[in-house]
Amino acid sequence: MGEKKDIVMDVIKTRRSIRRFEDRMIDDETIKKIVEMGTWAPSGLNNQPWSFVVIKDRDVKEKLSQQTKYAHIIRNAPVCIAVFLDKSRSYNRTKDVQAIGACIQNMLLTIHAMGLGAVWLGEILNRREEVEKILKVPKDFELMAVIALGYPAESPGRGSRRPLDDVLTFI
Amino acid sequence: MGEKKDIVMDVIKTRRSIRRFEDRMIDDETIKKIVEMGTWAPSGLNNQPWSFVVIKDRDVKEKLSQQTKYAHIIRNAPVCIAVFLDKSRSYNRTKDVQAIGACIQNMLLTIHAMGLGAVWLGEILNRREEVEKILKVPKDFELMAVIALGYPAESPGRGSRRPLDDVLTFI
Repeated sequence: MGEKKDIVMDVIKTRRSIRRFEDRMIDDETIKKIVEMGTWAPSGLNNQPWSFVVIKDRDVKEKLSQQTKYAHIIRNAPVCIAVFLDKSRSYNRTKDVQAIGACIQNMLLTIHAMGLGAVWLGEILNRREEVEKILKVPKDFELMAVIALGYPAESPGRGSRRPLDDVLTFI
Repeated sequence: MGEKKDIVMDVIKTRRSIRRFEDRMIDDETIKKIVEMGTWAPSGLNNQPWSFVVIKDRDVKEKLSQQTKYAHIIRNAPVCIAVFLDKSRSYNRTKDVQAIGACIQNMLLTIHAMGLGAVWLGEILNRREEVEKILKVPKDFELMAVIALGYPAESPGRGSRRPLDDVLTFI
């Protein structure tokens, strides 16, 4: 009973960005499970405004890596998941982008709970149109993030957060 | 080992919106724990662009409820958490709003894992300036969502999601 909440809070609190990975593929069933967990995020009116492209192909990954200063991370990761906002399903940009964030967090927590590691890459959004061309997604798709993942080959640092009293008020 | 991931995936998959609550307060330590879990979400450059106001006061809750067509949910919930984007900490709106979504999802998962229930209210954003006045937040704070929570007094329905094949491509 108490165990469930303790495990969930531990996973939330110990998740860190992992940027170096073993040279070892993740099987497709595991990748599908991770993406499926993303889709269980809540969204406004349950519009589920997300879409995903999983990149394992070396050549595509190389092209993708050239769109960011974090090229080495993408090159080194066995798998990348590009997350898109499907604007054809959008009803309110702020709420849709929040839903995408919730979806990504579900994936990151699942990855961490599985003993895998990942980093959420945002800087690549500076070249989002190039990425959309490389991945040949429909015109309505807007790149939201790239998740690089694999078996961790580094121990993450300690996370740091602002003191709770700085961000929390009771009325 | 396998148990941890199974528990996390189960919590992700069984979380539902809960809109009716028992007439029973949640203690402050529990509320703080929930918000703290929110703050362990990742954010771009770790900018942690969030701030929270917990509303337990009946009069404030009544005023808040009048800003949404879901007044009955807010009135009936022992606790509401208003989540704000602190624009003074913002560096990129899309990424900051995603981080807020990840933060809210951490809170919703924690709430569910604790055996509590919650609903993420977004319609109230139509009156966000009025809400910001009622809660007397700094000018830089933009309302992102209100979470109504408590001890569940209803059994949620089954969730539904689009088939994974409709949203997922492998390259």
